Amino acid sequence: MKNTLLLLTQHNQQYRELLAHKQLPNLTILADSDNQQQYVQQANIWLAEPHLAAPYLTLPTASTASTATNTLTLKWLQSTFAGVDALMSPQLRQDYALTNIRGVFGPLMSEYVFGYLLSHYRHHAQYQQQQTLQLWQPKPFCSLQGLNMLILGTGSIALHIASTARHFAMSVTGLNRRGHPIDQFDHVDNIDTLNEHLPLADVIISVLPKTPHTTHLLNDTNLPLLRPAAMLFNIGRGNAIESNALLSALRLFQQRRAILDVFEQEPLPPQHPLWHCPNVIITPHIAAPSFPTQVVDIFSQNYLRWHQSESLQYLVDPAQGY
Amino acid sequence: MKNTLLLLTQHNQQYRELLAHKQLPNLTILADSDNQQQYVQQANIWLAEPHLAAPYLTLPTASTASTATNTLTLKWLQSTFAGVDALMSPQLRQDYALTNIRGVFGPLMSEYVFGYLLSHYRHHAQYQQQQTLQLWQPKPFCSLQGLNMLILGTGSIALHIASTARHFAMSVTGLNRRGHPIDQFDHVDNIDTLNEHLPLADVIISVLPKTPHTTHLLNDTNLPLLRPAAMLFNIGRGNAIESNALLSALRLFQQRRAILDVFEQEPLPPQHPLWHCPNVIITPHIAAPSFPTQVVDIFSQNYLRWHQSESLQYLVDPAQGY
Repeated sequence: MKNTLLLLTQHNQQYRELLAHKQLPNLTILADSDNQQQYVQQANIWLAEPHLAAPYLTLPTASTASTATNTLTLKWLQSTFAGVDALMSPQLRQDYALTNIRGVFGPLMSEYVFGYLLSHYRHHAQYQQQQTLQLWQPKPFCSLQGLNMLILGTGSIALHIASTARHFAMSVTGLNRRGHPIDQFDHVDNIDTLNEHLPLADVIISVLPKTPHTTHLLNDTNLPLLRPAAMLFNIGRGNAIESNALLSALRLFQQRRAILDVFEQEPLPPQHPLWHCPNVIITPHIAAPSFPTQVVDIFSQNYLRWHQSESLQYLVDPAQGY
Repeated sequence: MKNTLLLLTQHNQQYRELLAHKQLPNLTILADSDNQQQYVQQANIWLAEPHLAAPYLTLPTASTASTATNTLTLKWLQSTFAGVDALMSPQLRQDYALTNIRGVFGPLMSEYVFGYLLSHYRHHAQYQQQQTLQLWQPKPFCSLQGLNMLILGTGSIALHIASTARHFAMSVTGLNRRGHPIDQFDHVDNIDTLNEHLPLADVIISVLPKTPHTTHLLNDTNLPLLRPAAMLFNIGRGNAIESNALLSALRLFQQRRAILDVFEQEPLPPQHPLWHCPNVIITPHIAAPSFPTQVVDIFSQNYLRWHQSESLQYLVDPAQGY
């Protein structure tokens, strides 16, 4: 079977070169065009950033019923991201196989989380300050050993973070929608028990995808339950945390910390009060970027399955949204 | 057999309480005294910080031949530190069993090393700066994945750091005096090949003890071989690095970094130029402190062996100095 691939990414040229090296059988890659719409109907496979694909996937309405979207030939979309929430709107088609990227973000997310955890618990800022004063003064020692980590989510990213935490002798609880035991965690519980677990955690990490169930899961009801010196990471999606409730919780205890890589609106608007909150660290959605080489490896493996009519890896369940 | 223990630490009261809980058989613990010398002859076992024990261990000379040191009853000294170089001087007695602390420092040393590594490679300082400007701007992505780490030393501390590095997908070479393969390392080579390995390493970590062989192992001959963006950690002993040669190597390439926890003179004198070198991070010998609870666990296990005339764990070889 002949297949035709459409690239919808910010790095099409790089993807084109990497794909050429893979020499995938029976695959034609469409050229870029100023008028991408003309190609959209020709490709049965898309390799796409979700937000770049979404505009071509709107469902026909009364006013658009006669347009091209109606005759879409898309059968499989490989997302270049882990998060595919941009494709989950009810206004968008879901009549194609959607796969995302898994397994490569865990190690990068661990780097992000443990970089900031260690920097805090091992007093980087204080020793840097002391160095400017030529001050030789050991601080009371803190370590990650024995701290309680609570991870919201137990997918591949959460698993890697949990294994890193165990390596550093932390105790790790994971929350998901089923609550059954998973090897890398000391405990796994149902996400409905969140409010019982929050007051026990020194470190809380949300790796949750954006779905209707995760919006404002951390809110003005449960954020006050955080320990006075809790560190809260959001490396999943911005919708999980209600910003105003977080700001209140942080203002109440100056030792609380939030380390945020994702936000309800990105880029975070310049006037947003989170930028200036002294116990917040803000990074511009960089915890675990997609590398085209890794994306192409995953796409190529999936393409060979597709070509041999085998089932695809990393299929997204539209009902769950991840 | 009745045993008598002398405590020579800065935390004798805490050790006394922890030891009481252990209820060690046939062990009398001597009280503290303003005139410690009177107790020195009574104890066959010392639990001691090396530098506090050293003054009581001087060999008799012509002028002191008639003093108490001559009649020392010490049979076993359990150091509360890993580093026992303060007891290795040729002016000191070596006619007793010396054990040190092992196995507990590796995880803390990993915390230190990976805290600073991740902070650097994941651009903490730059993102902090951008936050003050409300600037949302991802930097070119860097990761620990695939970096080459070179560890000088392959003991228990080096092993833990190597395992952490492998967890973060780094490649790890260890150097020691034998060069035989060790599981946690990708390669192990003889320390004599140091100059061949230095130019290949992104990260170099010295965990070497202080011995005549390790003094100025990194010097003006081989420090210029460092990569322009190499990161050099010293968490072993300060004697391993020639300070002036290091300063020259750092001034030549501003991207080079040295992260130093140990120094030839501690505290590092206020006028020392290392304090002000912009690509140096200085911490006051805090990478892996001894915790009395852990020390007492190790001492107690060793004491029960002693009491049953079994061989002690973690014996130091005076010929090697570690």
